[in-house]
Amino acid sequence: MNRDVTIPTTHPRYFSLMTREKIVAGYKNGLVALEGLIAHGRGECFDYLIGERTTDSARMAIDAAAAQILISNYPVISVNGNVAALCPDLLCSLHRSVKKSMLEINLFYYTKERESKIFQELAKYGVSNVLGTNPDNLVRIPELESNRRLVDSNGIFKADTVFVPLEDGDRTLALKKMGKKVITVDLNPLSRTSMEASITIVDNIIRVIPLLIERIKYHEKNSSESDLYTIVKSYDNKKGLKDALFIMNRYKEDQI
Amino acid sequence: MNRDVTIPTTHPRYFSLMTREKIVAGYKNGLVALEGLIAHGRGECFDYLIGERTTDSARMAIDAAAAQILISNYPVISVNGNVAALCPDLLCSLHRSVKKSMLEINLFYYTKERESKIFQELAKYGVSNVLGTNPDNLVRIPELESNRRLVDSNGIFKADTVFVPLEDGDRTLALKKMGKKVITVDLNPLSRTSMEASITIVDNIIRVIPLLIERIKYHEKNSSESDLYTIVKSYDNKKGLKDALFIMNRYKEDQI
Repeated sequence: MNRDVTIPTTHPRYFSLMTREKIVAGYKNGLVALEGLIAHGRGECFDYLIGERTTDSARMAIDAAAAQILISNYPVISVNGNVAALCPDLLCSLHRSVKKSMLEINLFYYTKERESKIFQELAKYGVSNVLGTNPDNLVRIPELESNRRLVDSNGIFKADTVFVPLEDGDRTLALKKMGKKVITVDLNPLSRTSMEASITIVDNIIRVIPLLIERIKYHEKNSSESDLYTIVKSYDNKKGLKDALFIMNRYKEDQI
Repeated sequence: MNRDVTIPTTHPRYFSLMTREKIVAGYKNGLVALEGLIAHGRGECFDYLIGERTTDSARMAIDAAAAQILISNYPVISVNGNVAALCPDLLCSLHRSVKKSMLEINLFYYTKERESKIFQELAKYGVSNVLGTNPDNLVRIPELESNRRLVDSNGIFKADTVFVPLEDGDRTLALKKMGKKVITVDLNPLSRTSMEASITIVDNIIRVIPLLIERIKYHEKNSSESDLYTIVKSYDNKKGLKDALFIMNRYKEDQI
């Protein structure tokens, strides 16, 4: 980064400021839309409120997500500009940790150029078999309010579980209506995405994915299919959202 | 503004959307850093939570800020990219309403070009005697964690009161450690800036400055120096932050 001011590693908010730099670099490299910068700012606000840490409740959601991914036949990981800018390495690791999974590029603010930059970014981390970029395979699925989205007929369209971090609410609902299990990562427990998803991880995606991979590996070694179904069935998403709100309120009261 | 989408004045969130347009225009005009767009997004989120209005508690902070400015010998108003984009006119009006005050350009993400654009922006509103741009006058002051900042030896360096809206926490603390009274405007009541400042106005700067000017004018006419000292002494910043949090929590609880 060609900057006059570099952020010292000892700055108390180094992690957050460097994450912000990743989004800025992502915008400069053509991965992130301008709208993505503003969306990131909103995420920073909620991350502040939750204490910039993974709560116990988020850990339960991550555990349920790991179980859901393992019991599904065809899980697809949706990649947008912000996640590609924040953690392309982690997305590729997650994909590698689940052999039956696929990555699919799926953009709210679509341009061919952004799609291609994201494709190149994932290729840097060794994954070039990425769905969503071949126009011949794209099919339209119904979204709310007559808006429509394109998904890959070999990817999200036929997936039984879709991991869609930092997703739009209409899109999440559209996937749910198609009968899919939807796992999302969203720092705003009040967003429509958070409320509509099957499993909402209220946390920062950079903190989430390493933990998710860890839980996937753990369950592969230690849990039976029946155990995994039990975890998924007993998971209560509304409770997770309420916990997140409660923590946001309590955390704040403790600070001052 | 040359935009494909214009915002109707009847839109319920017209004020917020137009404010966002000012930041976007500021970025395009070279006043605002990309990081500033993200910071604005975070601010929008907190503004939403507080109800996009000036609370009674913020009014008390504004009143204390007006008193503090009036009792100080040399108040300096720090200008960064975001405030220059949001309200250059209001900053110049504030400066004019306090004869002994000065404006100083002070950037976290410094570039010569941005500094110069901000200087030109202030000049448009009739203020060209702005500090912080002459390299011969810049002195380093200690910041936390070995990071250092430059301030004008004729400005912030010798000011007794510094008005630093939308400031970084380390910088706020550095100013406090130099014995200065620090007044800030910050929508995040949990930020280190908010917690470190002498007087924190938890509100949107666009709403704040007109009210601040109004209170300055009021006190000039109606209050003795002794009255002003009493206002400042009886002001409790921690209470102001707690009030802001309480209001934000109540707002969220109403949503679900």
